[in-house]
Amino acid sequence: MALRFALMIDPLAADDTRSDFASTFTAVDPAAPALTVGELSTQRGDGIFESIGVVDGHPQEVEAHLERLAHSAELCDLPAPNIAQWRAAVAVAASECGSGEGVVKLILSRGIEHGPTPTAWATAAAAADFSEPRASGIRVVTLDRGYAIDAPAQAPWLLLGAKTLSYAVNMAALREAHRRGADDAIFLSSDGFVLEAPTASLILRRGDAFVTPAPNGGILHGTTQLSLFEHLAERGFETAYETIPVDELRRADAAWLVSSVRLAAPIIELDGAALDRDAEFTTSLNAYLLSPRD
Amino acid sequence: MALRFALMIDPLAADDTRSDFASTFTAVDPAAPALTVGELSTQRGDGIFESIGVVDGHPQEVEAHLERLAHSAELCDLPAPNIAQWRAAVAVAASECGSGEGVVKLILSRGIEHGPTPTAWATAAAAADFSEPRASGIRVVTLDRGYAIDAPAQAPWLLLGAKTLSYAVNMAALREAHRRGADDAIFLSSDGFVLEAPTASLILRRGDAFVTPAPNGGILHGTTQLSLFEHLAERGFETAYETIPVDELRRADAAWLVSSVRLAAPIIELDGAALDRDAEFTTSLNAYLLSPRD
Repeated sequence: MALRFALMIDPLAADDTRSDFASTFTAVDPAAPALTVGELSTQRGDGIFESIGVVDGHPQEVEAHLERLAHSAELCDLPAPNIAQWRAAVAVAASECGSGEGVVKLILSRGIEHGPTPTAWATAAAAADFSEPRASGIRVVTLDRGYAIDAPAQAPWLLLGAKTLSYAVNMAALREAHRRGADDAIFLSSDGFVLEAPTASLILRRGDAFVTPAPNGGILHGTTQLSLFEHLAERGFETAYETIPVDELRRADAAWLVSSVRLAAPIIELDGAALDRDAEFTTSLNAYLLSPRD
Repeated sequence: MALRFALMIDPLAADDTRSDFASTFTAVDPAAPALTVGELSTQRGDGIFESIGVVDGHPQEVEAHLERLAHSAELCDLPAPNIAQWRAAVAVAASECGSGEGVVKLILSRGIEHGPTPTAWATAAAAADFSEPRASGIRVVTLDRGYAIDAPAQAPWLLLGAKTLSYAVNMAALREAHRRGADDAIFLSSDGFVLEAPTASLILRRGDAFVTPAPNGGILHGTTQLSLFEHLAERGFETAYETIPVDELRRADAAWLVSSVRLAAPIIELDGAALDRDAEFTTSLNAYLLSPRD
């Protein structure tokens, strides 16, 4: 959806304790030029981001997103973000999303090449209408991510736990899924374990237990997955992080891709084979995800 | 170095046969905002690029760079670039580099999210002074790239042969090399074969033969390497593309990282072990690389 609002952020040091951030924000026309061609975000995909769901003006799970932003910054040797400043930026941007579902995106770029500081901004947009994939489900194909499950532990410079702007492979995987007649993809490690979708986490159900790939296998720790696990635990279900061979996914009682804006999309087909889904249960998950969450 | 010049390009269809492209170019201040925050280059590292060396206003090996730009576009499902238009943009940008060594960068982004066309631009800058690494050499460490040598053949969505804007891992590898006290890195496949440097190709010498990793192992086909191989063949040397185990690199008689702007930098240390170099020979390589090449 077209951006409704953009806010340039003059990034403060993490230890700056001021409480009013207004002077560090500049609203800009999202359709007008705001970034120079020397930006390393654009030249090198060199920066990090977060996408935060917004429901009727309320940004969801802000602290989890800000924690992950800080974690990504650390992995990428970017200056630690000033969390209070970013929290304030989220509030300003969320208030511009309008009613219904929206999305606030935070971007922290390494800045202009050889420049003094990072470049930072937030945007606000209405969300696309995801009622169809939530209700009717999605067809998914598995795609090799090329890395062994133990790659990130061996090679932190692969940035596998960071939510970087270098998403060309994620976008190519989505195009490949569409070419194959599917809606989305699930990445597998080169040694056959389930990882994540290009822009979502995976949760599968085995009886009354809900399982997600352990976030040490080169995947992002999904904020929506975290929130859903809390919710499921409150409802009395077991939840677990595991190293999941792809065959186990194929045998799951049900599975979902979950993300901050599309929320819980039940997988109805995996590599061409039908997967059971529980429409009523999915509805309850999305009702929770659409309620105000902090 | 600070950008001297930037040219926004209104991308033409590949089959547009006009001969005057002036009306499709708009010079912009490289220090002023020129891109919107909705740009997919900046949000997703979703686009491709080329860096072309310029010597006294002459852009080097333009056709090889434009061919690779077209190849990258194909791998990334971007519209085929109009080569004549890009050639004209290179000429305009190269003329703004001034005397001495410069660099022209071409960027083709997927454009604004949900927008109608790609975004394209070229920049011109004076090159940094690389006389020191050319003359005194560079210390290099090997780093695991995480992929097996046969990954790209299995998984084209990994975009391993495309020069995409998603370079966060390349930049992280350079930071890791610096942390280890080195100047640069050489990526290895997860099964122990030599690939490339984050922003350069590798050439090694074995007697009178010069060898480079075969560009089917998930690496870019280096334009400088291609040009040097032609030059070496003309001087009567053997040249070959091979699958090179890392031990073979360690036993090489000499090795260089070669790229469009730094040119040939002899490797004097590999993972802490000294490597022989031939200063006179390197000088002859760089003399060739600094001569006008088409």
